[in-house]
This record gives sequence, C-alpha cells and structure tokens, in this order.
Amino acid sequence: MNFDWKESIYSDGSRYYIDNPTPELGDIVKIKLRVLSSAPVDKVFLRTVLNGDDHLIEMKVEQKKKGFRYYSCKLEISQPRINYHFYISTQKETYFYNQLEVSTHIPIEDYDFVIVAGYKAPEWIKSTVFYQIFPDRFYNGNPANDVKDNEYEFDGHSTIQRDWSEIPGDYEDSFCLDFFGGDLEGIKAKIPYLKELGVNALYLNPIFYAATHHKYDCLDYFKVDPHFGGDKALIELIEELHKNDMRIILDTSVNHTGTAHKWFNKEGSFYSKDIGAYHNEDSKEREYYYFDEDNNYHGWAGVDTLPTLNYTSEELRDMIYQGEDSVIKHWLKPPFNIDGWRLDVANTMGRMNEKQMHHEIWPEIRKSIREENSQAYILGEHWTDDREFLKGDEWDSSMNYYGFGRPVRQFLGELDRFLSFNNSDYKFKSSKKKAKDISQMFMQKLARLPHQIAYLQFNLFDSHDIHRLHNNPEISWDQYRGAVMMLFTFPGTPNIYYGDEVGLDGRIDTFEGCRYPMEWDAEKQNQNYYKLYNKLALLKQEEDALQEGGFKLLYDQGYVLSYARFTDEKAYLVVISQDNNRTKVEIPVFSLGIGEESEIKEVFNYSDLYNFNDGKLEIELDAKESLLFEITI
Amino acid sequence: MNFDWKESIYSDGSRYYIDNPTPELGDIVKIKLRVLSSAPVDKVFLRTVLNGDDHLIEMKVEQKKKGFRYYSCKLEISQPRINYHFYISTQKETYFYNQLEVSTHIPIEDYDFVIVAGYKAPEWIKSTVFYQIFPDRFYNGNPANDVKDNEYEFDGHSTIQRDWSEIPGDYEDSFCLDFFGGDLEGIKAKIPYLKELGVNALYLNPIFYAATHHKYDCLDYFKVDPHFGGDKALIELIEELHKNDMRIILDTSVNHTGTAHKWFNKEGSFYSKDIGAYHNEDSKEREYYYFDEDNNYHGWAGVDTLPTLNYTSEELRDMIYQGEDSVIKHWLKPPFNIDGWRLDVANTMGRMNEKQMHHEIWPEIRKSIREENSQAYILGEHWTDDREFLKGDEWDSSMNYYGFGRPVRQFLGELDRFLSFNNSDYKFKSSKKKAKDISQMFMQKLARLPHQIAYLQFNLFDSHDIHRLHNNPEISWDQYRGAVMMLFTFPGTPNIYYGDEVGLDGRIDTFEGCRYPMEWDAEKQNQNYYKLYNKLALLKQEEDALQEGGFKLLYDQGYVLSYARFTDEKAYLVVISQDNNRTKVEIPVFSLGIGEESEIKEVFNYSDLYNFNDGKLEIELDAKESLLFEITI
Repeated sequence: MNFDWKESIYSDGSRYYIDNPTPELGDIVKIKLRVLSSAPVDKVFLRTVLNGDDHLIEMKVEQKKKGFRYYSCKLEISQPRINYHFYISTQKETYFYNQLEVSTHIPIEDYDFVIVAGYKAPEWIKSTVFYQIFPDRFYNGNPANDVKDNEYEFDGHSTIQRDWSEIPGDYEDSFCLDFFGGDLEGIKAKIPYLKELGVNALYLNPIFYAATHHKYDCLDYFKVDPHFGGDKALIELIEELHKNDMRIILDTSVNHTGTAHKWFNKEGSFYSKDIGAYHNEDSKEREYYYFDEDNNYHGWAGVDTLPTLNYTSEELRDMIYQGEDSVIKHWLKPPFNIDGWRLDVANTMGRMNEKQMHHEIWPEIRKSIREENSQAYILGEHWTDDREFLKGDEWDSSMNYYGFGRPVRQFLGELDRFLSFNNSDYKFKSSKKKAKDISQMFMQKLARLPHQIAYLQFNLFDSHDIHRLHNNPEISWDQYRGAVMMLFTFPGTPNIYYGDEVGLDGRIDTFEGCRYPMEWDAEKQNQNYYKLYNKLALLKQEEDALQEGGFKLLYDQGYVLSYARFTDEKAYLVVISQDNNRTKVEIPVFSLGIGEESEIKEVFNYSDLYNFNDGKLEIELDAKESLLFEITI
Repeated sequence: MNFDWKESIYSDGSRYYIDNPTPELGDIVKIKLRVLSSAPVDKVFLRTVLNGDDHLIEMKVEQKKKGFRYYSCKLEISQPRINYHFYISTQKETYFYNQLEVSTHIPIEDYDFVIVAGYKAPEWIKSTVFYQIFPDRFYNGNPANDVKDNEYEFDGHSTIQRDWSEIPGDYEDSFCLDFFGGDLEGIKAKIPYLKELGVNALYLNPIFYAATHHKYDCLDYFKVDPHFGGDKALIELIEELHKNDMRIILDTSVNHTGTAHKWFNKEGSFYSKDIGAYHNEDSKEREYYYFDEDNNYHGWAGVDTLPTLNYTSEELRDMIYQGEDSVIKHWLKPPFNIDGWRLDVANTMGRMNEKQMHHEIWPEIRKSIREENSQAYILGEHWTDDREFLKGDEWDSSMNYYGFGRPVRQFLGELDRFLSFNNSDYKFKSSKKKAKDISQMFMQKLARLPHQIAYLQFNLFDSHDIHRLHNNPEISWDQYRGAVMMLFTFPGTPNIYYGDEVGLDGRIDTFEGCRYPMEWDAEKQNQNYYKLYNKLALLKQEEDALQEGGFKLLYDQGYVLSYARFTDEKAYLVVISQDNNRTKVEIPVFSLGIGEESEIKEVFNYSDLYNFNDGKLEIELDAKESLLFEITI
C-alpha cells in the first residue's frame, strides 16, 4: 500500500493505553503504544525524565491484534508529575512521538504525555452532555415569584418585568434589569424535556441574590435569588436531577461582587450603610477590596459596579473558599450537593499588578472543593491560552472557547471574537480559515495538556457571552451542522446552550441577542436542529469511542477537516467540509486499522458516496457538507 | 519584487526594539516593531495579558529608516512578568507575530516575547568569549605541587603522575586518578596566550579539594586543591585576570559530594571516622544525605562514590548557599571575587522522587548569588529541555547542548548524544539531519525564552563530557569550519574548550578522550584552527551585530542553513552547507533591508561567487562550504 506507516503510531493517556490512567504516587503502570504490524519498526522506547535525568525504558511487543503490534513497558509513578514521549527506531532512522506529532528530531517536552500522580478526574464527565441555562430566560415555573416593575433601581435603570413573547433585541435600551420570569421551578418542570433531548447535566448561570438578570454582581453568596425560587427551589431542583441521574454545576463570580453586596454596600439600599467596606474604612470587609486613600476602588475590567475582591486578605480566602462555611463549600454540602463549580472570569482572579496570586489561590480552591466532593467538576472561565491553569492542581477544565469554540467559529468563516470584540475602534479583517489553521488551533491546546485533563474540557461555541452561531445570517444550515457534529465528537464534554437545539432566535449585534427567552412553542421550534442535537447527544452518552476513545486528525487540506474518535473495535470518522465547492477527499483511515472488511455507514444516511481504496476512504462531499461515519473495525 | 513582505516583520527584546530592555516593576518602556515600508500594513497592535486579561495596544509609525517603518507603543511593566505578541493587520488579513513565526491564527503564548521585571542580565556576557579549562590538563605552572604516585587510593586505583606527553587514551585502564600536573599557576602563566586568542573569560572545571582529577567528588568546598596551588594561587590568578579585564567562573557540584567529603567521610582516610554522616547516625551531617535504615545512601545517577545531597535539610541549604559563609557566597566574596558559577548536574538538584524541590532551591540560590554580586553569571548544567529553569528567577543560562551543541553536531552528521550514549545496549540509527530539523531545534529553544535570557546562553559543542567534534574522523575540516562559525555567531556566548583552537588530539571512544593534555608545541598546533578561532573570537568581542544584534533564520532547505545577526547598519550573514555536492542557494536578505547598494564581503575571502538579485543573495557553495558575509546596510 502507498502510505506512511508512521501515521499509525498511536498512544494516549486513556485506559486503552495505560492500565491505570489515574495512578497514585508510587503506583506502577503499564503503558502501551501501537503501530501497524507491517511497519519496519525495530525497537520502541519510552523516554522519561526522573529526578531531572533522562531515562529510556525499552518497550516489548505484548500483543498483536487487528493488524497492530502493541508495545508495552512498566513505569513507576515515582514523582508527582511524570512526562514522557517515545523513540521509535527502525534499521535506518529514529523517530520521536509525542502528543503533537511524529518528528525526526528530539522534541521539546511541552507536548509530552503527562501523568499527574493522584489526579482524580470526575468520572462522570466522560459520558456527560451539558445544557447551559440562563435562568431568567428558560422557563417560568412560578409566576408568583417574578420581579415587580421598578423593584430595583440600578445605574439609572429600573426593573421591568417583560412578557415571554417580547424579544429583548426588539426594544430600545435593552438592559440587565429587564426580567422574563424564568426560575428554578421552571427548570425542574422541564427535566423530562431535557432528558429526552439527551442531556444529563446542567450548567446554570448565576442564581445567587442580585438585582440584575445575569447576577454576576452578587449581593449575597449564601442566598438563592428569591425571584428564582430561593434555596428551597434549588434543593428541590437538585433532588429531582439526582433522582434522574443528572448533575448540576453552579456559576458564580468570586473575582468580584456587586457594589450592593453586603460586604461592599455602596448603595445602601439593600443593607444599612453602617455595614460594608465602602462607607466604613474600619470595617473588617475593607480589606476584601482594593481601595486607595481617596476611597476609589478597583472594578473588574474597569467596571465600576463590579468591585474586585482582594485575595491578599486571609479572611476573604476563608469566607470564599477555605472555611467550612465558605461560599465554595456551602453549596457543595448537603442539602444542596451541587456537582461542581463554574467560576467566572477565573483567568483574572487574584491578579493585581505586582501581586499575582493566581497560582497560590487556585490550588487552595481546588483542595477545598475536592475535600467536599472528590468528584466535583472545576470549570474556570478563560478565553485564551489557558494552559497554566490546566496542569492538574488547579482547574479541571476551562470554558473551551480557546481550543474549540473559537477555531470552530473561524472554520465556518466568522471573524475571531478577539479581532471583532476587544478593539471596537478598528475593524480587523480575516479571510476564512483553512482546515490547517483549525487543526493547528485544536492541537495547540489538546497536545499541551495531560490526557486526563484534555478529555475533561468543556466544549462550546455558544454561551451567554457570545451570539448564537446559527443566528449569524452568513452561516448556512449545512455549515452549522458541521459545528454541531464537532461539538459532540470532540474530546471533552459538549455544552448545549439552551435553545440552540431548537434554533432559538437571536441577534448578533447586541449583547442581549444571545439571551432571548426560550422558544417553547413547538411550531416555532426547528425540528432539524432538534433531531441533530438529539441524535448526537444520545450517541455521546452511549458510545465509548466518543467518550474515552482515541483522537486522531486525519485530513486538513483546503477547507476540509477530518478526524476520528476510536477504540480498537469501532471508530467514528468526522468529515467536515466548509468548501464552497464539491470536493473529493482521500482520508488515510488505514492508520486506525480500517480495511476492506470494515463495516462503514454514515450515521445520518447523508451519503453513500464513499469508496475504500489503498488504505484510504475516498469521499465525495457536497459544498459545506459534513458527514459522520460509524465504522466497525 | 517577488518576495513575501511578512518575512520583514521583526522585533526582539534588545535595546534596538525596547528602549529599556531590563526594566524594573513600574517602569514604562517603549517597544518597537519594524516592517518593510512597501508592506501593505494597515495597523499594528501589541497584544499582552494584564492581570489575566487580553489587552491590545495600538502601535504608531514613529520612524522611517532605510526602507523600514518602525512602529512603537508604550507598555507599563505593571506586573512581574509580561508576555506579548503582535497583530499585524492589512486591509485583507490579520497576522500574528511571536518569537517563533508569523502565523495566520492566534498563537499559544509559549513563544511570546517576555519581559521579566527586575531581571538583571550580567552585562559583560554580551561581549564575552569563554575558554573552558580542565585544570589538570592545561599547563603545569608549578611542578612542585604535583601529586605523588600512589598519593591517593580510590575505588581500587592509585594516583599516577603522568608525563605531559603521555596520551590518556594510549594506556590501558585510564582512570581519574591519573594526573598530568596542570594547575592554577599554569593558567595564570598563559593569560597572554588567551588574551591574544581573543578570550576574555575562563570557565574552570572544579578546583576544590578532591582526590580525582575531575574533582566533582569534592572533599571540601572551602579549599582549593593543593595540587592546583591552593587558595593563594586562585587569588593570584583572579587578580591577574581582572587586571586584564578578564573574568572567571568556577564549577562545582552541590548536587552531591564525594564519599570522602568530611560531611560524609565514608573512607575515613582524609578525616577521622569520628566525624561525618556515614559512620555516625547522630551526626548533624546525617540529614545532608539520603540514608535508609540499613545505612544505604543515594548516589547521583546510581554512582556509589557520589552521595546525593538532601535539600530537605535547612542546615544544608545554609551551608551550601544561604549562610554568609556558605559555599556559594564564599568564593564570590573577596579575596576571591569570582564572576559566576557553573553548577554541575543542576538539572537533578533537589529532586528526589515525591519531593521535587528544584523550583524552591534555585530561586533561593539565585538570590544568594545576586546578593553577593549582581553581575554574577549563573550557569546550570542541563543537556535536554531546560526551559523551566530559564524563566528569569533561576539560572541565567544552561550549558547549551540542547539548543546549540546537539543540533550543530547532528547537522554535521553525528548521531545525537542521547541516541548513542544513554542506551549502550542498542544501536540507534539516524540519517544526517537536514537544515529544517536544525532550524527547528534552534528555534524550539530560543523562541521559548525571554530575549534577555536567550542571549545569555552558553554555547558549546565540545566539553569535558563529550568527545571533541574535530576528533571524529567522519567530520572534515570544511564541515567543522561551519560548526565553529555558528559557535561565534549564534545568540549567546561562545565557549572554546581548551585545545580546540589548535586542533588538539583526542579520541572519541573513551571518556578520557576529550581530556588530553594541552598541545603547547607550536609545531604540533594546527594553525588553520587557530586562525579561524582567533578571527571569530575577536569579531565577537568587537561587533555589536554579533552581541546584541537581531537573529533571523533565512534559509533551511536541504543541507544548507543560513541566518543573520544584524543591526540596522550592519549584518553578518552565516551560510553553512553540509551538502555533499555543490549547491546554489537564494537567500532572502531583502528582509534585513539589504539591497543593491549594500556593501558585501566574505570575512575569510572564501568566496566571491555571489550575486544580488530581486531581494535575494544568490550564492554558489562548494560541498560543505561555510561562508560568513559582512554586509553594510
């Protein structure tokens, strides 16, 4: 056959290639690597660094199966973090294989396979499909607890209670004091809907007491907002979820509070002015914030209403995460029992100029969370290069815009968020990104993380912070299908932003445009969207190939990208074209052990135009067509 | 012209592109970037991360000069470490530029430009040419202090005093108790020779009291070996060096001692058995080492004669580097006044299985050294990926095998050290590396370091630990010329291993083969070597382009590599062919502002076969020819 055997070299950090993927210090693990049996490989070594020194461990052929030789060796986890790559030697040449690539020279260690001793991944994540809810906009389960018009005044605005059928973008001056009445009772009522969709975990935007609909400007971390139903509604919601084998994570910002928080209490309309840092220089809460001598304070990203918390204060650390009654622990404990935390603007927490405390604070927060619930998921908000937080002692995951959402959107032709958003004075230009750019963006995140952590990433392209991709009129349904297909097949856990599954309306030119009230009118729900999401969500919950299976990029030419998720029995082959024209591609599936005798079918019956030839799958793709093949090896 | 304007994008961390390359916290610096004036650039932004958040700072054209536009902006050094890259935007596209490359998608931050606030580079390094001396083998300035035959016994061997004309590799059973009588008086006597060669700093292999010739198994860190002339000879040597504007760094292993060290004292032949850790469980030194219950101890790399020091002991830390009388401080203080430390097996120090203390210890050692001498050079031994030590708070440099010596040797066709040395049971194979592999190996080290640190790297291909490259019979003089040319033109400081400058004999099959006594017989010294080293050493001392000048890879096709070092007035263009055949190359020098009117000459008058055409320098190269062009822009 006419192909490069080196493409068949494969290992990863899953149970398919390590007998114990989450070992403790002192454990001995067996590590495997496979290569096609026909490859001219002479010897294979695992190269690691122990106490600073290079070590080579020879790997022996332990098994031959389905056309592959499996090499293995034992490795003692003798130190807290062990990194390794492989030497693959023929009679003529030595190759080096790490999480990024096969190279002809000794590589840097940034892309090494990494084992973090004692790292415990939340086991449940692998089969989880998340559903993100912006609570005010999902479903009104109890109109009795709705806000009243003019209930709050804030920044020159007053509360307005809107009707569900009003569209936020349709009225002038849309503001975060406009409420629609969604609440936790509403979410509970929709559990059957969510289960049927294929969802088994919820991520709720903030629900703690605050005057705005987004509630990132918290007034009290220890109280569920009464308009969402209060603590009682949360307890009942979580009990019902857990009964249904569903999980829930909550969102909060412990980077900043609102100015009306009782610790800060600038307004004084919620709490007496006698308390709080703003009006009382001698208050114990004064050190929780950054004040200068003139009573000016630091607000997150310069926003005056969001005073930044100051983690030089040990007492603040106790209040937020260290004490038994701390914010972080309170909601993990009974009767609440949440399953994890999504932490807002986690990238900026504890960082103030000369004092950069983030790598002090995050390991402490992790420790606190894990003490309470060893299976809790720790999800930090971050939009750009997040590697420093994902080494094993801080977060489990970031909101994966960087390694998933941003590349996917650019593949579909959108200008990157950081070119369109951060600098509104200047209009950056960019041509549509080619598949090679996308594959590089994928790998530059994935290949720099320990495998266990790469597979915990929270994948999303839509959220409360960015317009819905399908609302962009430049994006066609065919294009969008590719994005959704990637969402459910990419390593990590997929997040459905409420309403995406029915093609919920929205706008791309206002901040409120991605927070339209959920469409519950069946006639207005787009069934094409629903069927796509439903099918893929169920597949993700069922198929190990999409959970712990390997990941391999197979094709990235022009505007066509292809990768596979696979075990040694089964593979899902994802082929995404964003090309304006009909194309023909040849995907080198031989590297997965796929041959003439493999059974191949397209999951959505979209295509039978494929042909197996010389180790490659030849496929004809319509313009912007995406295909998902299920292959029995 | 037919070329890619993007190749002309350039910035670095030198004073040419930052008005204050080593700012303190709170300083405001001006950062520049240049691009050809003809480039279709619309806007340029500096992108940085402040307190975790993305920031874009627009850069304005501040100067037009010699065909370039220089963009600049101000940046406040508001936090201890600031990283940045650039956005370069045209009317059609946005490009991203970091220390590695120009890309079409947002890059990871690993290759960002980095400013470490308060980082002080030893200023003297930039114009330094080092000369490494293995003291026993350089020059016998005082035969009266030579060792006596049988003076020491060690590991079944006895001391032998050899005659200078005996060749270590020529007798059986060469061992590290064979001495040749070299000493510090001898080095002092040869200062005029070294100055004339173009050397202005010495790196001495260990000189503290020990029974072996290499002295890495120290008996007493506070005593210069009497056979090298004792403390007095060192004081006199350093005084004479400093009078001649020359500097000196010493080498020691504080990773381990010898078993005969008074702290350990296993033999008891140098000190009474009443003292020391080995025979006295209750001794205060017991905790300096790793003992188990059966009095077994840990030796470096399993070597029984080199017991590893245990830095969990605070008292050991005091003895080695924290106390005012510590080893590290003692020799930096008067009357010794050494100019820096080379620290042996620095990669392994303080690392013992579950207890990895290296990133605790090294910042402490750096602090101690800098307290004593703010211009002291801190050089750690490391052969592989050393980035974690080179972030600004630990070492200034590593022995740059990884980013220089190993790639250079492979470019000349040698099998990499880590394929030939670490695993003697198996013979790895490798074809000669192509220029592309070499340029990648160069950049994967350089582009991941703060500029200030990249330019402090200690470049070498030969040392006491690896056979001399020119002794390899497979390497021709023409090939070797290329390696030497790279040594003196690569960013960092070049190290001449004693004797390389006269083509000193040696062997490649024994460990002693690179430690032959220096050849002082003028008739046996190879003048071709001397002229090459001498010319390049003087050039390095004189030319700013080779000191603080920019570095740019220009060509890496087949077996021909080319790069330039340059200011806006002058460039050195290095062109190295390791091709077996005559080749013709076109080097895109337009990117440096070199044009028709530039003056070009080959430094060694080796070639006039070059022609400037369409922005490129067309050069015909003989097989394995290396050229060095001096160009006035």
